[in-house]
Amino acid sequence: MGNHFQQLLEKVNEIHDLEKVTWLLSWDREVNAPSAGAAIRSKQIGTVSKLMHELSVSDEMGELIERSADELNSAGTDRSSMEQSLVRFLARDYKENRRIPTDYVQRVSIAQGKANEAWKSARANNNFAEFAPHLAISIAHGQEKAEYLGYEDEKYDALLSQFERGMKTADVRRVFDAIRAETAPLIAAINERQDKVDDSILHQDFPVEIQQTVAPYFAKAVGYNFDHGAELGTAAHPFASSFSRYDARITTRWYANFISPALFGTMHETGHAIYEQGTGAELERTPLARGTSMGIHESQSRMMENLVGRSRAFWHAHFHKLQEAFPSQLGSSSAEDFYRAINKVSPSFIRVEADELTYNMHIMLRFELEQAMINGDLKAEDVPDAWNSKMEELLGIIPPTDSQGCLQDIHWTRPSYGYFPTYALGNFYSVQLLDAAKEQDPSIEAGLAKGDTAPLKAWLGKNIHEHGKKFDPPELVTMATGRPLDHEPFVRYAKAKFGELYEL
Amino acid sequence: MGNHFQQLLEKVNEIHDLEKVTWLLSWDREVNAPSAGAAIRSKQIGTVSKLMHELSVSDEMGELIERSADELNSAGTDRSSMEQSLVRFLARDYKENRRIPTDYVQRVSIAQGKANEAWKSARANNNFAEFAPHLAISIAHGQEKAEYLGYEDEKYDALLSQFERGMKTADVRRVFDAIRAETAPLIAAINERQDKVDDSILHQDFPVEIQQTVAPYFAKAVGYNFDHGAELGTAAHPFASSFSRYDARITTRWYANFISPALFGTMHETGHAIYEQGTGAELERTPLARGTSMGIHESQSRMMENLVGRSRAFWHAHFHKLQEAFPSQLGSSSAEDFYRAINKVSPSFIRVEADELTYNMHIMLRFELEQAMINGDLKAEDVPDAWNSKMEELLGIIPPTDSQGCLQDIHWTRPSYGYFPTYALGNFYSVQLLDAAKEQDPSIEAGLAKGDTAPLKAWLGKNIHEHGKKFDPPELVTMATGRPLDHEPFVRYAKAKFGELYEL
Repeated sequence: MGNHFQQLLEKVNEIHDLEKVTWLLSWDREVNAPSAGAAIRSKQIGTVSKLMHELSVSDEMGELIERSADELNSAGTDRSSMEQSLVRFLARDYKENRRIPTDYVQRVSIAQGKANEAWKSARANNNFAEFAPHLAISIAHGQEKAEYLGYEDEKYDALLSQFERGMKTADVRRVFDAIRAETAPLIAAINERQDKVDDSILHQDFPVEIQQTVAPYFAKAVGYNFDHGAELGTAAHPFASSFSRYDARITTRWYANFISPALFGTMHETGHAIYEQGTGAELERTPLARGTSMGIHESQSRMMENLVGRSRAFWHAHFHKLQEAFPSQLGSSSAEDFYRAINKVSPSFIRVEADELTYNMHIMLRFELEQAMINGDLKAEDVPDAWNSKMEELLGIIPPTDSQGCLQDIHWTRPSYGYFPTYALGNFYSVQLLDAAKEQDPSIEAGLAKGDTAPLKAWLGKNIHEHGKKFDPPELVTMATGRPLDHEPFVRYAKAKFGELYEL
Repeated sequence: MGNHFQQLLEKVNEIHDLEKVTWLLSWDREVNAPSAGAAIRSKQIGTVSKLMHELSVSDEMGELIERSADELNSAGTDRSSMEQSLVRFLARDYKENRRIPTDYVQRVSIAQGKANEAWKSARANNNFAEFAPHLAISIAHGQEKAEYLGYEDEKYDALLSQFERGMKTADVRRVFDAIRAETAPLIAAINERQDKVDDSILHQDFPVEIQQTVAPYFAKAVGYNFDHGAELGTAAHPFASSFSRYDARITTRWYANFISPALFGTMHETGHAIYEQGTGAELERTPLARGTSMGIHESQSRMMENLVGRSRAFWHAHFHKLQEAFPSQLGSSSAEDFYRAINKVSPSFIRVEADELTYNMHIMLRFELEQAMINGDLKAEDVPDAWNSKMEELLGIIPPTDSQGCLQDIHWTRPSYGYFPTYALGNFYSVQLLDAAKEQDPSIEAGLAKGDTAPLKAWLGKNIHEHGKKFDPPELVTMATGRPLDHEPFVRYAKAKFGELYEL
């Protein structure tokens, strides 16, 4: 490695250390810290973030990036090398960071604090009017950010690109439209046959302390490496976080009367954690040591939660473990009963509680509303009406209150427009990746048939995880599956699975 | 507040944020992180420490301190104000930090890593020769540091002052000599009457999970505020740490066959934690938001562990709680039996396992050896002999191996000479402080008589805790008790307590 690159790497290592430090500060705030300590903790995070930002956008950093790029190009270093990937990533990141003015970041930070308070109160009181002025500001901030970042086709492209590099709004729209066209009739047909699936066994008394003893088994079953992580933490809004590939952690929540959140939440977060645990060792202490996008990250969590965790084969192999933990609740049920219960499809108001199929409709609604907001076609005050009519159009139901409608998510308290679509992209990527994996390595299907995820994890490690952020999603998915994101695998999967379950 | 001071405070807040961040990174490493994550965690700590150091010793910081001092003096700000105390502290700290060359810090850091490995191996193999060359380097580094820091009377003063500001070697020697003269005969007399106290009830099966349910009761009983802290953590070498006055945490260890470590360890660390929880709100995010010295900090932990936690009144009030947790182990014992057992005095080889009385002898030994090492009168290779003859002189026993002798502590792997004496200073301060507290407020004695530590905690809060690092130990102790450290309170206490127990 040349001299400039070496200097750059040292700076980058330090900046990345600081970033991981902010992750730990946040993780600890959610999992361990007393609420009394939260205010000062936020200041500590602010101080580290500020230093990190200053180091990232310094003139010196810009020069080092440029010189390193020249150095690597002169040496003919391969495009897919860690070095070239890192410099490519940094050059883009540096340019974007320099484009966003410091005063904008401060304005957003202040506005977000206020919006957050207003949103909490508005949701608690079912009073959208309280939140409306803050939403208007957040939309304006989103539009402003799009202008700083720049775009060729659609304004929304600039925002989407922050979360899903290389994907344009038109690409997402095409996939979403195709899947909507194919799955909306499926959902409607299922809705006529609600009596086919009974999920009442999931809603019983499941003592939390027993859930806590059994959840680690399922984290392990879908590939979590406890030696490169920690015991499951508890958090109100579960998440995974990592402080290095050797220390990726999971949080879960526990409902005393409903087994699903802990079980599928744990497997979901495990999917995220094994991505981080699997990033290549040579990427360590660089910003490449991380999942490449929100959408690809979500594909890993959804794969473990749904494609594996809600599969028939998995439960035929592992249900006995759950039965042993809860003999009086599940002793008289079969693995097949359980498999059916966890796959009940039913339109509902709340995104985070939605089933595998209707979930995507919740996302499509937000994707359409966000574009309209950013394009100036939808004003903050008109969001509730737009929300409700979209809900009726997509799922045939209208939320009785805004709290169960457009006030349900925290996301719009900040200008993070473009984030929501990645949740559904994750679902679609996950099936395409699993199909390719099975095709390329027959031992994967054989393993899954007996509840063994090790061959699948090995394929994901080699084709997705170890690359970290070296490649943008379209390039990575094409490398792994031979083509960019495609709607067909998901449609085929959904029709087969739910067609069989609901006898359609 | 003037303009310069305000600017200084902003910088200081950020530097202090970074320091607290390193504490959290360390706490998490000990309590949660997998061992696989330790190497990268150390780099993260290194990065934050380096940034913190750069900010602390910048020319800009030096100017701001000077200008702030002028500003405060012109305004006639009171000496005991937060502002004057902070500038006083920073001026001294800045001067010392600038005196120590960066290359020295790096050399020590590298040497310490190697010494640590060698010490572990030497201790495991009872082979002092492995550690000897590293100890020689550590001694040389201690001598070098003393020269950078400077001293008037004795070289050791410079090192001691790093841990106990305002105390000179001669001050410590005077107190230690007086206490040794008075307690050595006491220990010898007790040694003749070992059969007077039976501590076998402490050594039974005490299931760890039950210890874990009962320990929080005792943390609370000696004043821990769980709302400004967290659940007890588990650590191989227990410690307390704080990330703000609103978040001070305790760790404990659990022995399945011995109840004392968890019980008295918890009360010890609680004493440290309530000091940090009690620092004044106006000191927050400054280096004054911390116990003033290692010795005063230890006085708080020892007070809760020994003066309260090993007192007759405390156990007559709280023993039932322990009995309820362990009915088969303790059901047939009385509070008085337990009180006697936990106060058994018996010379032993290992400092951290020593009783209240012989503990000080272990410290005096180290204090004398350290002075000789720093003065050049004791070479590394001669340490084992010096250790063993001192042990015989002070406690009448000779360790059968160096592992149980001069290799038992980690401290000398780094040049932290001057630290050991603060452990015993803590014992002596604690009695002097408690005597003064009882004299000034009769409700303290009345409270303790029924196991209630609230009045004592209130007095400590007002006289010690809330001052943080505003005053050096001699000034603080004089403010609180009317005089600097004195040997008499401890001697009186020891003679009365152990004279009665052993019928002397």
